[in-house]
Amino acid sequence: MAQDEFSIIERYFSNIGKPAANLALGIGDDAAVVEVPSAEQLVVSMDTLVSGVHFPADTSPADIAYKALAVNLSDLAAMAATPAWFLMALTLPQNDTTWLQQFADGLRQTADAFKLQLIGGDTCHGELSISIQIAGLVPSGRYITRAQASPGDLILVTGELGNAALGLAQRQGEIDLPQELRKKCLLALNRPRPRLELSPFLRRFASAAIDISDGLQGDLAHVLKASGCGANIGQSALPVNAWIEEQGAYHYALAAGDDYEICCCVPAKYRAEIESWNHEHADCRLSEIGEITESGYFLHDGKRLIDLGNAQGYQHFA
Amino acid sequence: MAQDEFSIIERYFSNIGKPAANLALGIGDDAAVVEVPSAEQLVVSMDTLVSGVHFPADTSPADIAYKALAVNLSDLAAMAATPAWFLMALTLPQNDTTWLQQFADGLRQTADAFKLQLIGGDTCHGELSISIQIAGLVPSGRYITRAQASPGDLILVTGELGNAALGLAQRQGEIDLPQELRKKCLLALNRPRPRLELSPFLRRFASAAIDISDGLQGDLAHVLKASGCGANIGQSALPVNAWIEEQGAYHYALAAGDDYEICCCVPAKYRAEIESWNHEHADCRLSEIGEITESGYFLHDGKRLIDLGNAQGYQHFA
Repeated sequence: MAQDEFSIIERYFSNIGKPAANLALGIGDDAAVVEVPSAEQLVVSMDTLVSGVHFPADTSPADIAYKALAVNLSDLAAMAATPAWFLMALTLPQNDTTWLQQFADGLRQTADAFKLQLIGGDTCHGELSISIQIAGLVPSGRYITRAQASPGDLILVTGELGNAALGLAQRQGEIDLPQELRKKCLLALNRPRPRLELSPFLRRFASAAIDISDGLQGDLAHVLKASGCGANIGQSALPVNAWIEEQGAYHYALAAGDDYEICCCVPAKYRAEIESWNHEHADCRLSEIGEITESGYFLHDGKRLIDLGNAQGYQHFA
Repeated sequence: MAQDEFSIIERYFSNIGKPAANLALGIGDDAAVVEVPSAEQLVVSMDTLVSGVHFPADTSPADIAYKALAVNLSDLAAMAATPAWFLMALTLPQNDTTWLQQFADGLRQTADAFKLQLIGGDTCHGELSISIQIAGLVPSGRYITRAQASPGDLILVTGELGNAALGLAQRQGEIDLPQELRKKCLLALNRPRPRLELSPFLRRFASAAIDISDGLQGDLAHVLKASGCGANIGQSALPVNAWIEEQGAYHYALAAGDDYEICCCVPAKYRAEIESWNHEHADCRLSEIGEITESGYFLHDGKRLIDLGNAQGYQHFA
């Protein structure tokens, strides 16, 4: 059953997500038209997932759709923005209606859950890949960058680190996790939870924030470079599951990436506010893993001080 | 020479285009932050070019960069918007520094020429493709859609139709064009001129407009469907070069696509304004090719009336 580009968009993608409040003209013309409220700024980002690079080729269409949107949502979370709309360029090797329906369903559920609407995009023929351009809103001047961390700030991360990488290693047969942990790690791999609930906290208390999907070690280095600071972090303070702790497999938490968690820096005077956050948000707990310093970048593993200054996280062209 | 994703962005793409007036935070963080002036709306679109589908694999990097931006600019032109910024997801089979430098140079020249800035994006590994999400501005409520054409409106197109398709046919050895025409047609294929100079005219006089890159016949059908109208167009009125006329090869102009021209509908009372436009814009001349009707979609080829109602332009999944 041949379907052209227009009917694919019409059939599967014309009605994804709740109508955005600021939408003047939606999908189906040469472009969409949106409004940005006068006291707000627009936060925009774009991320691509390529089959075989960012997800195993046999990942379910719904999981691919979820992840394509989630990785972009995580960038908005790191900027302390609220999701508004997205555009998608979908490149498909063939026109498989079952695949398309499952992908669209996954996309719709995700868009609904995070309250944003698909307002435009493109489908074309080629190797499977999904590029999403996402837009969020932030009260003017209240976005958080990587550049304002100061010596003495606490370094915090959300959630648990290393689970997605363990999930991938399990999937590729490299390790054999206990049943319960396996489930949790595969969920972290396929359904990473963008930490959008953290945005109001970040706007009030954070000096800097970053999405650590390329690995904590490399991504924190970006914060240090942009802020002109150093950092000391403690291995035993990293929020990891018992398996990583027992095996001492901390590289999963430090360098493997694919954890869509947020690392943020918060002045130490807000310690009470961090505790109060953790009291109310068990799912999005902030763990204190170290401190911003004047210079240098070190990990204390309990015995030695390891220089992270020249190390790198997972990078696509490394 | 291995280069990671971050150094590719830093080295080649951190400084493309003049700083946008509305940019609060540019490339290099989790997201960019922009402002939209209060009396304006944001016009957004996204188009992907895939190697071997949208351009021959041996196209020069500068031509690919130009075209990737131009096809998106053409969507803004069709909405009567003014370019502001863009994001790009670049997927590359390998990290070829010569290719990257030439691509970045082409992108920079094009961004400068059309006054817009690259503010974010992503590079990753895979089959060569370029997704660009473009944003333009339009005075609130003054964008032009496909949906407001009325019976009696004149149907106009910019420039000359069919040249890009002739260029492709020449490149693929299917035809052998005279030297001068060959040059012109290859230019139309590789360096299509988005018709942004038309935006002020469209805002004042047009009832509907569309980019006809998928072929006039199919794209005009979208206008008719959205507006609930019909159309009569005349083959002899199509602006084509002498070769198409002599060979009677009007399918290049009607259905082949890849002409980044604008088709617009203008109430007949503005005939004097159209003439005055043509007086001052020889390069972006508007040709009257027919008239909007109540219903039906017909081409008069001088002898017969051909029903275009069920025909289609070039479509990726056809």
